[in-house]
Amino acid sequence: MSLSDLDVFFNPKSVAVIGASQIPTKIGSVIYVNFMESNFRGKVYPINPRFKCVFGIQCWPSVLNVPDEIDLAVIATPAETVPRVMEECAEKGVRGAIIISGGFSEIGEEGRRREQKILEIARKAGMRVIGPNCVGVYDPVSGVDTVFMPRFRMSRPGPGRIAFISQSGAFGVAVLDWAASRGFGVSKFISIGNKVDVNEIDLIEYLAQDPMTQVIALYMEATSDGRRLIEVAREVVRKKPIVVLKAGATAEGSRAVMSHTGSLAGSDQIYDAAFRQCGIVRASDPQDLFDVARALATQPIPKGNRVAVVSNGGGFAVLATDALVRYGLQMARFSPETMEVLERKLPPITAKANPIDLVGDADAERYRIALEAVLRDENVDGVLVIILFQTPSLQPDIVEAVAASAVTYGKPVLVCSTGGEFTRAYVHMLERANIPVYPSPKRAARAMAVLMRYGEIRRKFAELPTPLQVSR
Amino acid sequence: MSLSDLDVFFNPKSVAVIGASQIPTKIGSVIYVNFMESNFRGKVYPINPRFKCVFGIQCWPSVLNVPDEIDLAVIATPAETVPRVMEECAEKGVRGAIIISGGFSEIGEEGRRREQKILEIARKAGMRVIGPNCVGVYDPVSGVDTVFMPRFRMSRPGPGRIAFISQSGAFGVAVLDWAASRGFGVSKFISIGNKVDVNEIDLIEYLAQDPMTQVIALYMEATSDGRRLIEVAREVVRKKPIVVLKAGATAEGSRAVMSHTGSLAGSDQIYDAAFRQCGIVRASDPQDLFDVARALATQPIPKGNRVAVVSNGGGFAVLATDALVRYGLQMARFSPETMEVLERKLPPITAKANPIDLVGDADAERYRIALEAVLRDENVDGVLVIILFQTPSLQPDIVEAVAASAVTYGKPVLVCSTGGEFTRAYVHMLERANIPVYPSPKRAARAMAVLMRYGEIRRKFAELPTPLQVSR
Repeated sequence: MSLSDLDVFFNPKSVAVIGASQIPTKIGSVIYVNFMESNFRGKVYPINPRFKCVFGIQCWPSVLNVPDEIDLAVIATPAETVPRVMEECAEKGVRGAIIISGGFSEIGEEGRRREQKILEIARKAGMRVIGPNCVGVYDPVSGVDTVFMPRFRMSRPGPGRIAFISQSGAFGVAVLDWAASRGFGVSKFISIGNKVDVNEIDLIEYLAQDPMTQVIALYMEATSDGRRLIEVAREVVRKKPIVVLKAGATAEGSRAVMSHTGSLAGSDQIYDAAFRQCGIVRASDPQDLFDVARALATQPIPKGNRVAVVSNGGGFAVLATDALVRYGLQMARFSPETMEVLERKLPPITAKANPIDLVGDADAERYRIALEAVLRDENVDGVLVIILFQTPSLQPDIVEAVAASAVTYGKPVLVCSTGGEFTRAYVHMLERANIPVYPSPKRAARAMAVLMRYGEIRRKFAELPTPLQVSR
Repeated sequence: MSLSDLDVFFNPKSVAVIGASQIPTKIGSVIYVNFMESNFRGKVYPINPRFKCVFGIQCWPSVLNVPDEIDLAVIATPAETVPRVMEECAEKGVRGAIIISGGFSEIGEEGRRREQKILEIARKAGMRVIGPNCVGVYDPVSGVDTVFMPRFRMSRPGPGRIAFISQSGAFGVAVLDWAASRGFGVSKFISIGNKVDVNEIDLIEYLAQDPMTQVIALYMEATSDGRRLIEVAREVVRKKPIVVLKAGATAEGSRAVMSHTGSLAGSDQIYDAAFRQCGIVRASDPQDLFDVARALATQPIPKGNRVAVVSNGGGFAVLATDALVRYGLQMARFSPETMEVLERKLPPITAKANPIDLVGDADAERYRIALEAVLRDENVDGVLVIILFQTPSLQPDIVEAVAASAVTYGKPVLVCSTGGEFTRAYVHMLERANIPVYPSPKRAARAMAVLMRYGEIRRKFAELPTPLQVSR
């Protein structure tokens, strides 16, 4: 099977929603409505022997009755009916199935046998399967949306450059909802559930080729194949960063993984060593997963680890300095030319050494002077900008000042900003201009540290020989 | 001088705003408007020799001309005029002065001399001084508000139980604005600036007696008197927790402190040891400062460190377990009675061991059963509840279910919940019911760890002899 097999999950021309209904609390109903309400441009067929018509559209008793080809089947019927449904899909020539239904290996022996059965059917027919026991796929560009949470309860993110794979459905849904509300986009979301066929490694390989994806973010409880994960990741991180939030890091957490997905979380030290070896960045928390992914998705890769801090609040500058140093980065030492420019152009009350304190009455011009000076400096690899918008001297031109410097010099620029409604309006403008903003100095420093760590990974892995092909 | 001297800053009957004006960009103008627009019930006198009238109200050239007593003077005039203004306040019998103006010890020798001069005037007159170089005081109950950021740029928090002292004005303002937008209240906010007279230790002593204050939160770059801080804190933490965010933790950060407030940050190890010795909880970040303060302000003090986790999302439950264990807490082992209740009352698909996974279709009733069972259990000291509101089975009665269990058993209950707009409505309801909600398992676990650490501090310090009096 080739990578392009997985295309059917994201760009099907026709979809059958098996278990579609008009009863609004049913999963099949929500999924059918998703396709109707999203920007999906293909054909959608409701399948359910109990209805002649769903939301005014003809409903078919089985995929076999549909007088058209079906690329993708979304299956949301009771577990015991799934093998029969899969047989029909195989006979119909369906190329991919997303099985939402639960009641498989996560419930024990009977479910495991059932899961084995559907795998056999799929393999024989050359059909790829995502799930079972998952929420499936969300693609904001094609409009595929099998997430069975109603849109009033859960917002959907717009298009972005972060692909997000989750082993836990609920985890994926909660984080996706949060990301949407913060205005962060995704390229693709995949909940892999029991991963009877398609697993996180297949998806990493696929997403490595995906032009919409810049960063691959993964929530994992246990990998399907540690050795292959390492092999694939080593190749992928040469061009795209992979960030993993691995649950089950403690003995108690591992036991909880076992009762959650029935999989073996494995030793955390082994995972940690493996991630390090293959250049995977490890996240510490759902928030952290997106904090670092956002920086990686928008910023150039730094050439070193020397950071300049520019601030209009002295306290925040000190906290940022503490955090950067604790994350192992260096406070840049400015060149004499930079110091000369700062001395000449900035008012006497400002502090010109690193961190630069532009003090409370700083305006956009003061930021522009400082940012240009430090971004030009060869001793600076990235800049952390602190902007406290509560001070009356800041006007919207601060956004242009920061955004323009950021794109000009090919060095990462991250912003730390804390506040309420007024600040949020500015934060939103900055993020629209591809400048990630973090509410605390520690989180901004952490994102900078990951950017610089990824720069190291890229430099290190560039020197390694490329294997002729990645084994499967 | 006695503690009640400081009352004048929070409950003055009459206030003079010196430097008041009608030019909206002037600091004195913003402060005067604050008093007019807040719930301040005392008298407010604008003082400025350049105006006869400010916002339609008679303006006086000096406090000496005001035909009435003045309790509190808020001084926002150029630095060089402050000594003269202070002389007039002394002559008038003003009891407290908040000096907003900058241009004192933070600018060097000339400023230091000026600062010394105002201290002499104040001491001689028995006047207390907050500042200079600060944003002063915000008290949501009395309406005192000397924060010179316009209300459209910076929201003000409502009344709450957290007192917040900040050595940095900009830091205090940004965090206050953020807290307000999240709906978190404060009992009092004090920006101490150069602390020529009133310092963080005086305020800790004062707030220890303040019935509105349950937790004292402090942002500090350098203490005025390490020995006295330890002595005072040891006494105060017996009844109220103190949380400190100390900046300048690294050598580079210390240097930045020096250029920010001109004070010596001191060795971080020494601070760390001192905080430990006197039972001060150390925060790692502005977010963390409020994360832990919110838990301490609302939750009962736990008797041990055994935590139960109740969740409707398996992935979040695993992450919470990992985080709790990493913070040194124990996953509670339920009693046979609890296990029996859970087995009997919860559906077969749920996981009954700790963490309890109520699975994706959990409703309020399932949460109620689990929460009551674990809160009754003698082997449980606190509960971390994970609620993912995206699932269709949750209705608003979940708020009553969680809030009712939380108040009934005298054990802390913290919630972790992540999502968008819909979730935020629930989060707001829970927080109104005094249940702190955190967006990530790690932050919820951290707050629980601090609650349990404070429980230990209280138990340990209860055994120490009480000194007859705290030396000054």
